[in-house]
Amino acid sequence: MKKNFKLVIEYDGTDYHGWQRQKHERTVQAEIEQQLSLMTCRPVTLHGSGRTDAGVHALGQVAHFIVDTRLNADVFLKGLNRLLPRDIVIRSCRQMPDAFHARYDAKWKTYRYHVHQDDLPPAVGARYVWHIRKKLDIGVMRNAAGMVTGTHDFKAFEGSGSPRSSTIRTLRKAVVEISGCCLAFEFQANGFLKHMVRNLVGTLVDVGAGAVSLDDFQAILASRNRTNAGITAPPQGLFLMRVAYETPCIDT
Amino acid sequence: MKKNFKLVIEYDGTDYHGWQRQKHERTVQAEIEQQLSLMTCRPVTLHGSGRTDAGVHALGQVAHFIVDTRLNADVFLKGLNRLLPRDIVIRSCRQMPDAFHARYDAKWKTYRYHVHQDDLPPAVGARYVWHIRKKLDIGVMRNAAGMVTGTHDFKAFEGSGSPRSSTIRTLRKAVVEISGCCLAFEFQANGFLKHMVRNLVGTLVDVGAGAVSLDDFQAILASRNRTNAGITAPPQGLFLMRVAYETPCIDT
Repeated sequence: MKKNFKLVIEYDGTDYHGWQRQKHERTVQAEIEQQLSLMTCRPVTLHGSGRTDAGVHALGQVAHFIVDTRLNADVFLKGLNRLLPRDIVIRSCRQMPDAFHARYDAKWKTYRYHVHQDDLPPAVGARYVWHIRKKLDIGVMRNAAGMVTGTHDFKAFEGSGSPRSSTIRTLRKAVVEISGCCLAFEFQANGFLKHMVRNLVGTLVDVGAGAVSLDDFQAILASRNRTNAGITAPPQGLFLMRVAYETPCIDT
Repeated sequence: MKKNFKLVIEYDGTDYHGWQRQKHERTVQAEIEQQLSLMTCRPVTLHGSGRTDAGVHALGQVAHFIVDTRLNADVFLKGLNRLLPRDIVIRSCRQMPDAFHARYDAKWKTYRYHVHQDDLPPAVGARYVWHIRKKLDIGVMRNAAGMVTGTHDFKAFEGSGSPRSSTIRTLRKAVVEISGCCLAFEFQANGFLKHMVRNLVGTLVDVGAGAVSLDDFQAILASRNRTNAGITAPPQGLFLMRVAYETPCIDT
């Protein structure tokens, strides 16, 4: 009997070439697919809610797979966590209606980006932050974050290489938090363009450092031109936190 | 002119066989000594405030070295941070009176131990925590921690292999904090025996899991017998946070 399973996945992306399967590189999707195939004795395709770049982490990536099996969700949860390397952990596995699709049914995604702001880089936790020496002005970054909240054309913050037919997205949340020398940006949207969070963070940091004014920031957003925005923040500070759905799971 | 320098050192101990120089293993002390020798063109010996075990981290290890040099503290700070691998960062370098000794002059040391208490292990940050599935009772662990606060003979919590002439130590602080599934133990003492923090944590966890009663815990401490105490908690949850001195540095 064909069953559809939803996985919530945590991974430390440091040692992976991102989520998506590639021919000659180690990826999170390929790693999990390999163990699923081992468990079910047939090839299994895992459909992620979206890609994450090389070096990006996830606390709540979501993916689904359809397989003809007698195994239940709990067996997959325990089996995968026994088989997978320690930098990938399946947080939950639930059986879903046949039609559930991790990518098409995603309603909201939440990303967090961590900056370590100090004269010296950290040795502990360096794989999870972007180290910045410049003193950043939190207030002005919060103002800029307020400007991108809502529905906008985010083409100025889209990385090259995989253009979308529409670059309009609704950003429900864009906040900047600070605790000591740890700075966190959190974004929640109905979808993100390629590199959108990293490009937003790169440009917000320019605003915080005084290199880009709030008027300039507004103009960058309006320009729809990537070359106007700041650098792409490095991948290791980025975490895919949650992917939200409305589809209820099947109780098993 | 001979000068005495004090370093405050942060390191991610994951990829090191501990602090202390060894013949065929990569250690933090050897790594820094090598770069100091490179900078000064002569062999330099670094004296740490104490050893840390393989896999243990530090946010504030302290060490001193005496060298005949015209270089000043700031040159050592910048030079070392340029030369050292990214998992070792020198937080500060100050010139000290000739007599200053990182080990003999240490007044207080503070250690923290991080436990991740959850059904599933973490993928992100796994190198910095001890994962425990059992639900631990914080209240009872706090009571036990209170019992070891003060001046006691800690022989029951001393690891074998490097016995000290006196096993009496004064624990100024022994607290248990909780935030979500993150549990932290913090200890401050005028000195620690080998494996003392890890043995205390291992036994406190037994208390929190209900395997050891408070009366038993008290009896273990009084017994001065290591075989009565719990397991040695694994190294990766342990951080040497601070070493406190009374010697003022020389302003340069």
